[in-house]
Amino acid sequence: MTKSQLFESFLFKEWVPKIEKYRQDLEASIPADLKIELPKPIDQLIDEQFNAVKYLYDAKLLTSEELAITDSSAVDLVNKIAKGKLSSVEVFKAFAKRAVIAHQFTNCATEFFTEEGLKRAQELDAYLKENGKTVGPLHGLPVSLKEHLCYKGKVTHAGYVSGLDYVATEDSVTTQILAKLGAVFYVRTNQPQTLMHLDSGNNITGFCKNPYNLLLSSGGSSSGEGALTAFGGSTMGVGTDIGGSIRSPAAFSGGIGLRPSSNRISWLGSLSCFAGQESVPGVMGPLARSVDDIELFMESYINEGKPWEYDACILPMAWRKLEKPNPSDLTLAVIRDDGLVRVTPPVRRALNATVEKLKAAGVKIVEFNPPNTKLAYETVHQMYTCDGNHMHRKFLSASGEPLVKLTKWNLNYGQGARDIPASENRQLNYIRDGLRQEYTEFLVKNRIDFILSPTNQNVAPHSGEIFNWSYTSLFNILDFPTLVFQTGIFQDPTIDKWTEEDLSYKYRSPLEQMENENYNPEEFVGAPVGLQLSGRRHLDELVVAAGKTIVDVLGVDLFKH
Amino acid sequence: MTKSQLFESFLFKEWVPKIEKYRQDLEASIPADLKIELPKPIDQLIDEQFNAVKYLYDAKLLTSEELAITDSSAVDLVNKIAKGKLSSVEVFKAFAKRAVIAHQFTNCATEFFTEEGLKRAQELDAYLKENGKTVGPLHGLPVSLKEHLCYKGKVTHAGYVSGLDYVATEDSVTTQILAKLGAVFYVRTNQPQTLMHLDSGNNITGFCKNPYNLLLSSGGSSSGEGALTAFGGSTMGVGTDIGGSIRSPAAFSGGIGLRPSSNRISWLGSLSCFAGQESVPGVMGPLARSVDDIELFMESYINEGKPWEYDACILPMAWRKLEKPNPSDLTLAVIRDDGLVRVTPPVRRALNATVEKLKAAGVKIVEFNPPNTKLAYETVHQMYTCDGNHMHRKFLSASGEPLVKLTKWNLNYGQGARDIPASENRQLNYIRDGLRQEYTEFLVKNRIDFILSPTNQNVAPHSGEIFNWSYTSLFNILDFPTLVFQTGIFQDPTIDKWTEEDLSYKYRSPLEQMENENYNPEEFVGAPVGLQLSGRRHLDELVVAAGKTIVDVLGVDLFKH
Repeated sequence: MTKSQLFESFLFKEWVPKIEKYRQDLEASIPADLKIELPKPIDQLIDEQFNAVKYLYDAKLLTSEELAITDSSAVDLVNKIAKGKLSSVEVFKAFAKRAVIAHQFTNCATEFFTEEGLKRAQELDAYLKENGKTVGPLHGLPVSLKEHLCYKGKVTHAGYVSGLDYVATEDSVTTQILAKLGAVFYVRTNQPQTLMHLDSGNNITGFCKNPYNLLLSSGGSSSGEGALTAFGGSTMGVGTDIGGSIRSPAAFSGGIGLRPSSNRISWLGSLSCFAGQESVPGVMGPLARSVDDIELFMESYINEGKPWEYDACILPMAWRKLEKPNPSDLTLAVIRDDGLVRVTPPVRRALNATVEKLKAAGVKIVEFNPPNTKLAYETVHQMYTCDGNHMHRKFLSASGEPLVKLTKWNLNYGQGARDIPASENRQLNYIRDGLRQEYTEFLVKNRIDFILSPTNQNVAPHSGEIFNWSYTSLFNILDFPTLVFQTGIFQDPTIDKWTEEDLSYKYRSPLEQMENENYNPEEFVGAPVGLQLSGRRHLDELVVAAGKTIVDVLGVDLFKH
Repeated sequence: MTKSQLFESFLFKEWVPKIEKYRQDLEASIPADLKIELPKPIDQLIDEQFNAVKYLYDAKLLTSEELAITDSSAVDLVNKIAKGKLSSVEVFKAFAKRAVIAHQFTNCATEFFTEEGLKRAQELDAYLKENGKTVGPLHGLPVSLKEHLCYKGKVTHAGYVSGLDYVATEDSVTTQILAKLGAVFYVRTNQPQTLMHLDSGNNITGFCKNPYNLLLSSGGSSSGEGALTAFGGSTMGVGTDIGGSIRSPAAFSGGIGLRPSSNRISWLGSLSCFAGQESVPGVMGPLARSVDDIELFMESYINEGKPWEYDACILPMAWRKLEKPNPSDLTLAVIRDDGLVRVTPPVRRALNATVEKLKAAGVKIVEFNPPNTKLAYETVHQMYTCDGNHMHRKFLSASGEPLVKLTKWNLNYGQGARDIPASENRQLNYIRDGLRQEYTEFLVKNRIDFILSPTNQNVAPHSGEIFNWSYTSLFNILDFPTLVFQTGIFQDPTIDKWTEEDLSYKYRSPLEQMENENYNPEEFVGAPVGLQLSGRRHLDELVVAAGKTIVDVLGVDLFKH
């Protein structure tokens, strides 16, 4: 044994038992009666690129009643519950069952607490019966929460082994608000070490898999939310996004997600390493299976929840519920290539097909080569690490846990361990403000409503194999509200191949080469393609309303299989 | 001659002629036919603590028509202009005359351009005649601008000698918007070196004096705006505030001013050393003589001006025009002492009188000892200088101009020349967010609408003699919208003396001692006392509406003399 091995083994002694206990607790938290027998050992399913969503239906894992409930929109469910056509308990039980199945396939959960959920659903039913009204606009909706939202009395580790010692003393503000609105909690979900991966993977609960292809990642950092909501294990879930962490899991896992503008949904009382970092705002937002449900979340949370009464950072801006615009009233600027990393064939095909359908419906499309994307990319990456990863290192070194592959990658963003001076941080902010100005002026002066773009250069990656964030992080530095929606197109290895022309392409950077060479058509079978719709800062309502129109035009209904 | 004298004389060679030229240009820009003969040489008036406002009326410097116009509210004037009862030219001429007199007494202007103003007023009259409608809600209003708002084709020096070489190539966004709304520009106003004084004073145009007592400062950094608007030389003016720079000149000079929440009025295209600094937001806002006029500015600027179409930083939040609340519906927390620096007798008297009048009118008053004011003060001062004064030093050293007294003071705030690492900057932001949370929770949980507080520990200071900002900077770090209004009370040396009890007071700090010992009742004769009304972040409309109620209760009308 070398000295360093000895040192490592010593450290391991400290944290390995804690992890084992956490994993045992997770396993024990899964209600045995809801578990299914997997068709094959999980490793074999992974190798076979198993489609768990398809299997759910093919193998009739749910009763027709359970399917009817869990394939209803949240909007429908709250209506039916309010009218007494469904009980909160019935709804809860169906989702709890589907959530457990989702977890068995994808490893999306960090903790189940279905007894609490059931009790809460029973209380809600009793309340409705007694008072003839609901407690709020989310009455009886099973809602999932990303792990790092603090939950009173439960471990909140935020993907750090050192966090295993931390038991939250109160709920995060968003948890409090959702509870008040009537949400039922029963599951918390997986996320990567440091949160800074468009992938899953931490030393505690490991990787989260893609429900449409178990060989692939569900994306990240809201990895568990991506897999769980797209599989239908909750009506809606709460994720966070500082570089693409709501959008990549929504797109990759086959769901819908909104990265709202900053300071509309409260981040207060969640555990992360970004306290006081405001150069590139981290935001919280919903993942779901329909734009209507995204809207239900935003409208209820903001207008009924009044988050500014809880969190001084939140803007007291009401949510304006807008009519869906007509396709012919929309002008979209489409980004087909961001100048940094070429998109892979399935993404290209989905983008082409989407643009054609939108054009046919009357949407005006303007081709858009986004300016200064390299500057944006370099600036946002410097912002992520401008404290020299000070807090990340504190959290990591407190346990001595090893860094997972993508943590090593992301800690080297920007200037890595250099804690830059405030004067340089101001320079970065100044560059950012210039970029926001440039993109806003482009939209205003050309009367363009929204930007349509790929969510990533590729579909869902293999775990540990996603390095470029440029398509998502652009909208973080711009702070543009961005909706991810599904195109209804899935990777098909027989058609989504590189063409002859593609193969003679001259790479613009090693990063592009690495990302493009990672795409082997045979290894991404059936991966969904989701795209981004971005609008101007703090005009989130417009993006959501237009998103409904676009999804209508595409005819994609995630409740139908 | 010592070596350092030699060095200084060498540097002087570079910049002295530029300053002389600027001063000559300023002098030449004053229309000779509008000038009055001063009753005595200016130095003698200063020594005598001359009240220029009183003299304006006593000596009948304006005709009754000019007085009627310049003592009308902006709200009245735009109505009369729109109805053809007054022309833009008549209004302009009256204000131009009063502005020139204001400048002769106070040194408030950095530049007049009345020919441009007259031409613009003529064009507006022609437009109205031809089209039967105004160009916008500020049609024909003479509006003054703080110097550092860039103005196309004119020198914009921002109080730095090095800035004398800079001729703006375009108007600041706010200048553009106000022009579009119908404002008439004709004068730009004085501000101190670095902007970081609650006082005036730079090496180019020197100090700006208080219209109510020429021995005193008009406050700062919107020094010229304070003196000019309170004297009645413009209907409204635009200032900026990062530590009290709208509020101190409004309070000290006898006017009204609003420090809006961040990101409602655009700062874009103004020259300052704060680009990229977002820990403590600098804001732009109006100074005027009535709360209705403040509201006219905010409502027009936001709802008609749509600043978010020009500046990506601005929140797309409409201005809600609210009814004045009834006094009995208001609950105010009153700060009589911030725990750092004791207020002087005139401020104490004005605060007592105001509270008594408000109570008598039915307003509920809660005594409030604001928490963590020392932490707030130390944190905000570290924020001001956290780049080690990097940009200030660049701007100052470019010319080699000497530092004026208060610049030396403010460059030593916080950690002075230390360019702190980003990790420490984040810590400061984290502390700030905690303070915002603490104050917001106090208001929400106790159902308190607003905070009433002194604007400063004292009335207007002698030039170069104001060191403590704690009463104003508290609301900068909190980012609470804050209205300064006049109490109608002026310093009276016969009654505003320290009492026996006061004199046995034990100072809590050398800063407090210095500030309190600076107050000699005989040297502040007739100085106005203005107070602050602060509300929750981004709820500026509530503060303005309540401000109207409070001013009604106090019965203070700044148009009546």
